[in-house]
Amino acid sequence: MDLVEQLLAGNRRALARVISQVEDETDAAQGLLAALYGHTGRAHVIGITGPPGSGKSTLVNTLARTYRATGKTVGIIAVDPTSPFSGGALLGDRVRMRDLAGDPGIFIRSMATRGSLGGLARTTADVLSVIDAAGFDRILIETVGVGQAEIDIASAAHTTIVVEAPGLGDEVQAIKAGVLEIADLFAVNKADRDGVDHTVMALHMMQGLAAPTGGHHRPDRASHGHAEAGEQPDGSWLPPIIKTIAVRGEGVEELRVWIERHSEYLRSTRQLSQREAGRARSELDQILRDRLLATLLRRLPPGQLDNIIDAIARREMDPYSAADRLLAACDHLGTGAGAP
Amino acid sequence: MDLVEQLLAGNRRALARVISQVEDETDAAQGLLAALYGHTGRAHVIGITGPPGSGKSTLVNTLARTYRATGKTVGIIAVDPTSPFSGGALLGDRVRMRDLAGDPGIFIRSMATRGSLGGLARTTADVLSVIDAAGFDRILIETVGVGQAEIDIASAAHTTIVVEAPGLGDEVQAIKAGVLEIADLFAVNKADRDGVDHTVMALHMMQGLAAPTGGHHRPDRASHGHAEAGEQPDGSWLPPIIKTIAVRGEGVEELRVWIERHSEYLRSTRQLSQREAGRARSELDQILRDRLLATLLRRLPPGQLDNIIDAIARREMDPYSAADRLLAACDHLGTGAGAP
Repeated sequence: MDLVEQLLAGNRRALARVISQVEDETDAAQGLLAALYGHTGRAHVIGITGPPGSGKSTLVNTLARTYRATGKTVGIIAVDPTSPFSGGALLGDRVRMRDLAGDPGIFIRSMATRGSLGGLARTTADVLSVIDAAGFDRILIETVGVGQAEIDIASAAHTTIVVEAPGLGDEVQAIKAGVLEIADLFAVNKADRDGVDHTVMALHMMQGLAAPTGGHHRPDRASHGHAEAGEQPDGSWLPPIIKTIAVRGEGVEELRVWIERHSEYLRSTRQLSQREAGRARSELDQILRDRLLATLLRRLPPGQLDNIIDAIARREMDPYSAADRLLAACDHLGTGAGAP
Repeated sequence: MDLVEQLLAGNRRALARVISQVEDETDAAQGLLAALYGHTGRAHVIGITGPPGSGKSTLVNTLARTYRATGKTVGIIAVDPTSPFSGGALLGDRVRMRDLAGDPGIFIRSMATRGSLGGLARTTADVLSVIDAAGFDRILIETVGVGQAEIDIASAAHTTIVVEAPGLGDEVQAIKAGVLEIADLFAVNKADRDGVDHTVMALHMMQGLAAPTGGHHRPDRASHGHAEAGEQPDGSWLPPIIKTIAVRGEGVEELRVWIERHSEYLRSTRQLSQREAGRARSELDQILRDRLLATLLRRLPPGQLDNIIDAIARREMDPYSAADRLLAACDHLGTGAGAP
């Protein structure tokens, strides 16, 4: 059996080997992905993001165990965009291994940034496809922090959970504004801490502020947080806010039920296909951008790039004019000014 | 006088208008940047990054006032990559305005993500060029959080300050690993809090772990944190760790002195020109990638992109094979397989 057949047959070593090929972008990687891609699309993908200190890793572990109790297999991808240089040191990994290792229904892979951020988002999408093809029922993608990177990665998921916790400081308020529109579910973790009601109320209020003004939400619902969460009469989705205490497992089964409910919602509406199309578009764009740049650079006369870089650094030319010049120099890769 | 002349003459309204053109990527923007670029390269650019709750905004404000006391003019760019959707809501802005407004030697601009992260990094670089051309002596770029986005943006600076504070939770330790290699200076802010010595010691230990094994650092230096920070006998730079209490202004003058010392270090070695060249390269790459993709998409037959996206979403084709097909379809933008 070749590597692809072994992977499809459930061989974990084959799975790990294919992922390594994909991460290292070996010559074989593209062929492996092409062979596996037709087997993807079965897993429900769950993104988990939130600020440092919110207890995401513990929540992910507990959620994985909760899924295992229902018989589902679980893949976990832990992405750490904050470690661009170390490459190996991975957050909470030892704890995770101790908790979950030895269960053949769980597969864990940690990833750190290598090179560009776009590169990480693309590699994460590829690793996701491989684990999906290997037949895992649910795939959890955990990202650290809540920057654009994390949002991009979490957005590749079908269901995105934003984890908050009481008392993470004033700036967390600002962060919520940014993630509100990607959250399908909110988990307010460490719910035994002081200030949990304040955090829940703040999220409810932000939902009220973000509600469409077209009358879809009754004022009393939105501003007081009394709306029934989940699918709305108009077919939209109001993210539930679920209190959890991940270290004790409290609220995590409720979280799991909400994930499944959201999955049903996506499948029963056109949302799932829209999300799949959006993800396909962003992956494709990223690949095209990389390949086009690589082709252009390969076709430049030797030394020209260095000369242009020097000219920019010496302020003799601005980067946009420099780009125009390079594109013109490679006229079969022209700027398209003469194209229809 | 045209807009560029007004800006160069110190007209703040002209400065704000040019920045808006650059942010909105108007037709005029590229011409404005080209006209201004020859006037850039004079400001010393200081990136300030660190996790939420470390007190970065207050530190930036206090640092700006400290610079003003020495007669230097200061531009501040506050970048919030965590607000990709809101576009307007900007962190700590009202506090900042109250503190610093009315001083003609200070110019403040806040930016939030619009569209892609690469877009934000590029726009930030352009806005930086405009403020530089306007003649401000020091430019502070503040970013929220410590993801790859923040690292990319902070890396555009000459001197990067990583701000930490005691008691921000376990994950902060992991974050430090990622930012260690971009930090030129560490500020341990909120230094009146419990645990400050632990934070300083942890940073010292990480510097020890990260030290080259070639014998540049004596073991007692690295492991006990007794090395004299700053320029080393071998010409490398050991980042100082400076305790600050930004709300009271304590330690901020020392921080300013260290920034100037690092600026001197960069100028006296080849580091400054290397950093400028690296920055020029990444800006150029980003512009080229955007333009090449735009050209390709413009040249595709109508409907072809949508058909390919559908095929990917339906798992009939993987994204890499789809990219190959699009590149082949646009054969004057081919994959370069036939090129030398």
